[in-house]
Amino acid sequence: MGARAGIVVTGTEVLAGRVRDRNGPWLSDRLAELGIELAHITICGDRREDLEASLRFLAGEGVHLVITSGGLGPTADDLTAEVVARFQGREMYLDAELERRIAAIVEPLLKRWRGLDPEAIRTSTRKQATIPRGAEVLGPAGTAPGLVVAPADGREGPAVVVLPGPPSELHGLWPEALETATFRAASAGRSQFEQRMLRLVGIPESEIAETLRVGEEQIDGLEDLEVTTCLRRGELEVAVRYEPPARAAWEELLELVRERHGTELFSDDGTSVDEQVAALLTDSGRTVAVAESCTGGELAGRLSAPAGASAWFAGGVVPYANEAKARLLGVDFELIERHGAVSAPVASAMAEGALARFGAGAAVAVTGVAGPGGGTEDKPVGYVCFAARLADGFELARDLVIPGERPDVRDRSTTVALHLLRRLLRGESAEL
Amino acid sequence: MGARAGIVVTGTEVLAGRVRDRNGPWLSDRLAELGIELAHITICGDRREDLEASLRFLAGEGVHLVITSGGLGPTADDLTAEVVARFQGREMYLDAELERRIAAIVEPLLKRWRGLDPEAIRTSTRKQATIPRGAEVLGPAGTAPGLVVAPADGREGPAVVVLPGPPSELHGLWPEALETATFRAASAGRSQFEQRMLRLVGIPESEIAETLRVGEEQIDGLEDLEVTTCLRRGELEVAVRYEPPARAAWEELLELVRERHGTELFSDDGTSVDEQVAALLTDSGRTVAVAESCTGGELAGRLSAPAGASAWFAGGVVPYANEAKARLLGVDFELIERHGAVSAPVASAMAEGALARFGAGAAVAVTGVAGPGGGTEDKPVGYVCFAARLADGFELARDLVIPGERPDVRDRSTTVALHLLRRLLRGESAEL
Repeated sequence: MGARAGIVVTGTEVLAGRVRDRNGPWLSDRLAELGIELAHITICGDRREDLEASLRFLAGEGVHLVITSGGLGPTADDLTAEVVARFQGREMYLDAELERRIAAIVEPLLKRWRGLDPEAIRTSTRKQATIPRGAEVLGPAGTAPGLVVAPADGREGPAVVVLPGPPSELHGLWPEALETATFRAASAGRSQFEQRMLRLVGIPESEIAETLRVGEEQIDGLEDLEVTTCLRRGELEVAVRYEPPARAAWEELLELVRERHGTELFSDDGTSVDEQVAALLTDSGRTVAVAESCTGGELAGRLSAPAGASAWFAGGVVPYANEAKARLLGVDFELIERHGAVSAPVASAMAEGALARFGAGAAVAVTGVAGPGGGTEDKPVGYVCFAARLADGFELARDLVIPGERPDVRDRSTTVALHLLRRLLRGESAEL
Repeated sequence: MGARAGIVVTGTEVLAGRVRDRNGPWLSDRLAELGIELAHITICGDRREDLEASLRFLAGEGVHLVITSGGLGPTADDLTAEVVARFQGREMYLDAELERRIAAIVEPLLKRWRGLDPEAIRTSTRKQATIPRGAEVLGPAGTAPGLVVAPADGREGPAVVVLPGPPSELHGLWPEALETATFRAASAGRSQFEQRMLRLVGIPESEIAETLRVGEEQIDGLEDLEVTTCLRRGELEVAVRYEPPARAAWEELLELVRERHGTELFSDDGTSVDEQVAALLTDSGRTVAVAESCTGGELAGRLSAPAGASAWFAGGVVPYANEAKARLLGVDFELIERHGAVSAPVASAMAEGALARFGAGAAVAVTGVAGPGGGTEDKPVGYVCFAARLADGFELARDLVIPGERPDVRDRSTTVALHLLRRLLRGESAEL
């Protein structure tokens, strides 16, 4: 049994759903890379007793390491350092050297604001420089230092790594945390796991369930693979984790999935469709433009998200109004009147318009009914038409009804559009 | 003390950070509306012992209600029903009537796929129809039924509401869950909380901390307010929760914030800047168009996200390449050469071009350096120029350096653009 860890995310704003937690997933990835097994993520509000309960729960589950995020700010509801000190049996003290370092960081920031109260700043700085005695101090990256706190002498339990809530500060302090003596000792027993990911599209979950049942009969040691399947944004993900001796079973499973679902399996090396599209564009030297109606900019947002996207992303048009389809993309008004704005001919004309207007090497177009209003019997909510086209005229088209609410229809439509673009760039047909 | 609840989110894909949990925040909102206090959200993988540990932890914390999401699918890693049955001291059995109902739902879905194995379908259906004896059955909404499971006779502990992981199915079953006798009994002691939200922009967190300290001295009963502050997408949120007798203290606090931060406070009724912009556009009968470079479509995505956006969202252009700025928006090439693509004059020309091309009543433009590459000494990563313009020529402009990594710069730029648009529509000045 290797090292196990737990993550405690604090913040009433996270618990109440007003802020999406990005730190739990990020830390989870980092732990996986280190071969440290993550048992639980817990989220609690800014309340002393709830935070203490989370720490006790994880300690009771026998984890070697607890990582907390949040609760290191200057307001009175920021109480992580104090609660962790008590949990580890350590007292709090004002670290004068740390106070000076934080003050030096705060000084230039103050110039951005007018008329701040210097006493308020001093109180905030002191609060952030008050830490558990014996803690190893990280950073600070922003104005809050991170802390690595071992149990006081004579006590047992997990080491606690205390990190600030703002993701960029947490990312900045993480490498330093790994270097501390306390972290090294707590993670000493970590195992080496290998992690694999298969991604399929256009297949129901029950088919993979059946393949796994077939695998149980055919493959020796399948039980040593931890297999989890998950539907996500219209794709099916199959994640497999194992210790190195089980690699042969993984390879047999991969063979079985290829055999049974060769057409639907689009990734067996961890790459996402976004990454594959970026690579196909880079390799072919093509640029891409988008024309998207019901997805409202989300497809352009997804294509432009990676660093370096400007090398192959020419741009996009979001012609929400029909006049915009005509004026910005040159779609014939008569075509819209004859077939409706949500139709295969209009999608095709939008792709053609995007190609021409951006002078791009490829284009993809989406037009559909995102809902909740606007559905008809012929074209219900979720009905979406797609077209993807190369500059030389090669084109793929699809239309389908996408289930779910407005955000789901928008989100899954972007996934379908990326898959159509991927197939276009690979010179494949539209249908699976 | 009112009714308290805990949420257990299951799924190795969520724990591993491959899928973002949307159910925890959604359920958290629903509980808040009901006046049920949420103590913890826990996330664990698809492992029997970890799920059991989470249930035991929450029961130990004295919650009256546990809501689980996920683990009701057809694969072997879906084990929530079984674990909850054991936790509540109930045996599992195949509910034949439920099996017939699921089979009837599955039948039409099968037509979408080719060559499915009927035996695989039957096995999946049976698994999903096998439930704890005595459970109240919800739905099913998709193919998985929800369950409300009280402790078996003679046992104590929380009622457990078992819901499926796909958000639309979970949303569909929730109203039914509230109607069950078990849910009603478990949530009987709920309090009535009032929740308020203040939103400010252009102010550091330390200033609000100071205002709260001043409030402690001036306001009787401030300690009965649960106040949490949070930086989010470039805004500062102050959430306040209290039981009705503390309302006077809330009103005094609101007065104090208005007095000290009147210019920065843009919302005291829970509305977001997105909602305020939508209302301003609706009231003024104006449409809006966007021209956005570094945000890559995210601003259009945010404006088009609400249902009914087509009434006032004309559309957008994402002119990532410089030629696109010229060709699609009529921005003068010479202007780009003289000032650079990221400059106030180009932002202004982009806004003007969007107004004209979409025939819109208002337009907002963003051009900036999202990073990680492309920064210079004059225009570092995070430098972004904004312009917002009405059809009559009234224009507001801003430029600033936004801290953070590429996704942060993109995200916060959309917030700044929305605030500039809000101020434009209110006829205010650009600077706070």
